Amino acid sequence: MDEMLAAIVENARPRHGNGAVATYIPELGKARADALGIAIVTVEGESYDAGDSDYPFSIQSISKLVSLALALTELGEEQVFSRVGVDPTPDPFNSIMRLEMDRINRPYNPLVNAGAIAVISFLPYRESAARTSAVLDLARKLTGNNALAVNEAIYLSERTTSDRNRALAYFMRSTSILDGDVEDVLDTYFRQCSIEATVKDLAIMGATLAAGGINPVSGERVLSSRVCRVVRALMATCGMYDGSGEFAIRVGIPAKSGVGGGILAVVPRRMGIAVCGPALDAKGNSICGMQVLEELSREMRLRVL
Amino acid sequence: MDEMLAAIVENARPRHGNGAVATYIPELGKARADALGIAIVTVEGESYDAGDSDYPFSIQSISKLVSLALALTELGEEQVFSRVGVDPTPDPFNSIMRLEMDRINRPYNPLVNAGAIAVISFLPYRESAARTSAVLDLARKLTGNNALAVNEAIYLSERTTSDRNRALAYFMRSTSILDGDVEDVLDTYFRQCSIEATVKDLAIMGATLAAGGINPVSGERVLSSRVCRVVRALMATCGMYDGSGEFAIRVGIPAKSGVGGGILAVVPRRMGIAVCGPALDAKGNSICGMQVLEELSREMRLRVL
Amino acid sequence: MDEMLAAIVENARPRHGNGAVATYIPELGKARADALGIAIVTVEGESYDAGDSDYPFSIQSISKLVSLALALTELGEEQVFSRVGVDPTPDPFNSIMRLEMDRINRPYNPLVNAGAIAVISFLPYRESAARTSAVLDLARKLTGNNALAVNEAIYLSERTTSDRNRALAYFMRSTSILDGDVEDVLDTYFRQCSIEATVKDLAIMGATLAAGGINPVSGERVLSSRVCRVVRALMATCGMYDGSGEFAIRVGIPAKSGVGGGILAVVPRRMGIAVCGPALDAKGNSICGMQVLEELSREMRLRVL
Amino acid sequence: MDEMLAAIVENARPRHGNGAVATYIPELGKARADALGIAIVTVEGESYDAGDSDYPFSIQSISKLVSLALALTELGEEQVFSRVGVDPTPDPFNSIMRLEMDRINRPYNPLVNAGAIAVISFLPYRESAARTSAVLDLARKLTGNNALAVNEAIYLSERTTSDRNRALAYFMRSTSILDGDVEDVLDTYFRQCSIEATVKDLAIMGATLAAGGINPVSGERVLSSRVCRVVRALMATCGMYDGSGEFAIRVGIPAKSGVGGGILAVVPRRMGIAVCGPALDAKGNSICGMQVLEELSREMRLRVL
Repeated sequence: MDEMLAAIVENARPRHGNGAVATYIPELGKARADALGIAIVTVEGESYDAGDSDYPFSIQSISKLVSLALALTELGEEQVFSRVGVDPTPDPFNSIMRLEMDRINRPYNPLVNAGAIAVISFLPYRESAARTSAVLDLARKLTGNNALAVNEAIYLSERTTSDRNRALAYFMRSTSILDGDVEDVLDTYFRQCSIEATVKDLAIMGATLAAGGINPVSGERVLSSRVCRVVRALMATCGMYDGSGEFAIRVGIPAKSGVGGGILAVVPRRMGIAVCGPALDAKGNSICGMQVLEELSREMRLRVL
Repeated sequence: MDEMLAAIVENARPRHGNGAVATYIPELGKARADALGIAIVTVEGESYDAGDSDYPFSIQSISKLVSLALALTELGEEQVFSRVGVDPTPDPFNSIMRLEMDRINRPYNPLVNAGAIAVISFLPYRESAARTSAVLDLARKLTGNNALAVNEAIYLSERTTSDRNRALAYFMRSTSILDGDVEDVLDTYFRQCSIEATVKDLAIMGATLAAGGINPVSGERVLSSRVCRVVRALMATCGMYDGSGEFAIRVGIPAKSGVGGGILAVVPRRMGIAVCGPALDAKGNSICGMQVLEELSREMRLRVL
Repeated sequence: MDEMLAAIVENARPRHGNGAVATYIPELGKARADALGIAIVTVEGESYDAGDSDYPFSIQSISKLVSLALALTELGEEQVFSRVGVDPTPDPFNSIMRLEMDRINRPYNPLVNAGAIAVISFLPYRESAARTSAVLDLARKLTGNNALAVNEAIYLSERTTSDRNRALAYFMRSTSILDGDVEDVLDTYFRQCSIEATVKDLAIMGATLAAGGINPVSGERVLSSRVCRVVRALMATCGMYDGSGEFAIRVGIPAKSGVGGGILAVVPRRMGIAVCGPALDAKGNSICGMQVLEELSREMRLRVL
Repeated sequence: MDEMLAAIVENARPRHGNGAVATYIPELGKARADALGIAIVTVEGESYDAGDSDYPFSIQSISKLVSLALALTELGEEQVFSRVGVDPTPDPFNSIMRLEMDRINRPYNPLVNAGAIAVISFLPYRESAARTSAVLDLARKLTGNNALAVNEAIYLSERTTSDRNRALAYFMRSTSILDGDVEDVLDTYFRQCSIEATVKDLAIMGATLAAGGINPVSGERVLSSRVCRVVRALMATCGMYDGSGEFAIRVGIPAKSGVGGGILAVVPRRMGIAVCGPALDAKGNSICGMQVLEELSREMRLRVL
């Protein structure tokens, strides 16, 4: 198994040349374009890895799964989905026009930026610090890594270069979707995006989602199985942004990508798989990561679709 | 098993009262609003059914799976997807504005009306009759029912009440997406939508897609496993129109609905499931059908997401 | 005066090289790219001309003024504007997406294709031939030229190459804006676009609109002053498609262009001006025509804005 | 003349009942809904007024004419219109989606909020205070009122309730249309909107624009005639937001409205007319103001279209 993973990684690594590290957040531009790592954790708690599996990277949009799971746990599906939709969208991740066009003015789903920011604003915490702590705390339980932390340099870089996210947030407050202070809400958003992890950490998070909420390494129940099901369904339909359809065809597994180069894939009742390769395609998804997942899905017959 | 199916059907049947039979095509308005049937065929060829499983209905948009599979077989993925996208869309099934807004002017995916009409226009047949025959022929092989036929009354009704589909087709010809004569292409579209079948027929089609292309009743290889995979992936992300996200959460199985009241669900490597209940929700999906599939998915642990 | 006109024409003529004759309607492609003519008729009936003022061309979208004036006369403002708006739009003349996006589903104004086709469908004539006759008859009275006629070659060319207009018409019928048979309505539209005239003819039409409805050459009252005011106001805000804002700045006179190369400008209470130069810019407006009007407006201090 | 004005005002005053004072900026909600005043100043410097012509109100969007004129004077047309369009738009004044849909990402014109904010950001002043001073200074010269000042209470109210404008500004900075610090740019925007004036003040501004840039009361040349022409052309096509088409039909004079209830109308080479009535219609235009202008235009034969 470890051999197969190593072969797949080395086979995919040269592809990074076609992509580019995200640079719109300057600090992300420092990532190693040729890094490539993979880790797998099964629902029985077995683990495998290959390549740069100890390379730390910011999880970026993968953190949207954490804040969504927290909101579903604290508020319930009905309350969350009365204010954010569950529809896939062909628009890019940072699109604003749908917020105005849509007759009901809701963000399309919790995995595009607008939806994720709205979800954070619903979380029932008075203070921004408490809200950020709650998200970080859940991320630690999902990965079983109590040392998981925000990378301050990336956080600061995000905060100073995020005009589009500010536009989304102010727009949503003008239409009464977003509650509270915009800068406060965005502070939690920028911090959760800047959480740093390795593919080993994320593979445990994936295994927890695959196992219906029980972390197979720590043995702790972290989420209800119902919440895991909702999160996995949204990963399958909206997790790879406007590349979700192509990913469903090529790989056929629920997954969520981040512009830090990470992709977290979840094979329900079987395993979590995390890959990281910072060179991205035009849609913001890791080029080598998708390649690795496609080959792995074929070799191990993982596709569920 | 048959008992469980019967119980689920009888439990769901009263729900039809909240929906309405499609009436924009007058002939569809004659369907029995309270009809409800289900059939299951496994990849091993076992079959089960309950309720109005011999009730014939027009398969409508479920036929888009057939013409798509035919185009993928005849032309290959690359050619099909260079002209029609694979992206889910939050717009209604008959939306036209995306055709103009999108920078590349392609229909979003082959399961919305515009995409399905475009796919039909690509099929490599000179004559409209030959094209329609090829689609019908594939539908017969997929269901194993050689008597499958177009319901002429429904076909005529579709043809005279289809201004929106004509608008889509003429628009696509003006942007060089659609090839050939508009009325000829639409003729095949209207005829394939008017193919009449029972849930027993469709469950065999579903089992064939689940089994990677071998019809488990006839034993014939009808499609390649690659084509089946593409079709199932698109069903999972776009099959239930703008209700695809909600369906993924509630049921978690690739599926395709039609305004005749049918839904075809495919559990990869396990079974095909067909339901029919003509009373529809606002998005054009069968209300009782979705209810039956949700309960069945829970009871039999069928969800793949 | 005639000398000044001649100088302006000869000064502008070389500019045609930057533009292209419309070719999406093949028959229009036969127009002389270097033709350029101008005619002026005052509300007192004096007339002036220069350049190719006897060159016949199809009036194309300038005909929308005629069918609009007819509808306003026959049905009244209230009825017309309850179904077609009066708003300028930044979209191209043949745009369809607004029809779906707009919450009330109306074409933006009667001078874009969708609006003009809708207006024709409202005209209270049973038969297509009677409707076309009524439009042609009004055009003859407005120009005082009883020999005005449809160019059959252009009409046939329009009819066979008008997928976009068919899409607009079928879409509007699907949303109940357009009444009647689509091909019948389009027949009148294609025929009125194919009316052939010279700038001398059109300048008289412009003078009639400038004079509040009395043809200053024939002395006949053809339209009410109220209808002329509405037509001139729409020319000022929507007459030059998405080039209306630029035209208001450069020229400052209500005007309407056609892809045959004509532009009809109306200086209220003073004169009608018609120019024709078939080489068009990207927005479908005559390049030399706009140049001539800009210079003339400056020289004769014609701008009203 | 004064008698006719008084009669028109008293005739229109009861209409205010159908409208509502703007309340989205709380401080504006304190305006007198039944106030109604008019003032006229001719290009010869004669002045007339009636009704509440000394009632002070914030000029709101009418201030966009001032910052636009300043930008045109300082930077020239080419530079301004390379970054902001000149196209009318059927979208509401605070629309954001066009910024994303449009292929070139420019605000449609300088009289919608996005365009006005962008224009302010282009002004060649380092400091926000200097920029605001320059706008206020030009407004004082245009009105001849050196005491013209910002109403601080309204300014503070605007600043704290302007999520939509913040969204527009951050979005434009994310697409590199807006230069500089968003809050700095908005500060000038909020202050210029909060300039308080009477209809007597504004009528002089209108007369200056009508006279090609010479203030007919002070005798000072304030703007070039070319800048006045551009400003008037944009007033005619975009000045009344999505009500511009209707206004062109009903009144037929270039005009600009503000949500404080003011409307400034300019009859080129003849006069400036200012009205104020704080009760607004759904599009944000003064109901009584439009009524007064319609009647006045008819009585005095002022329409230019």
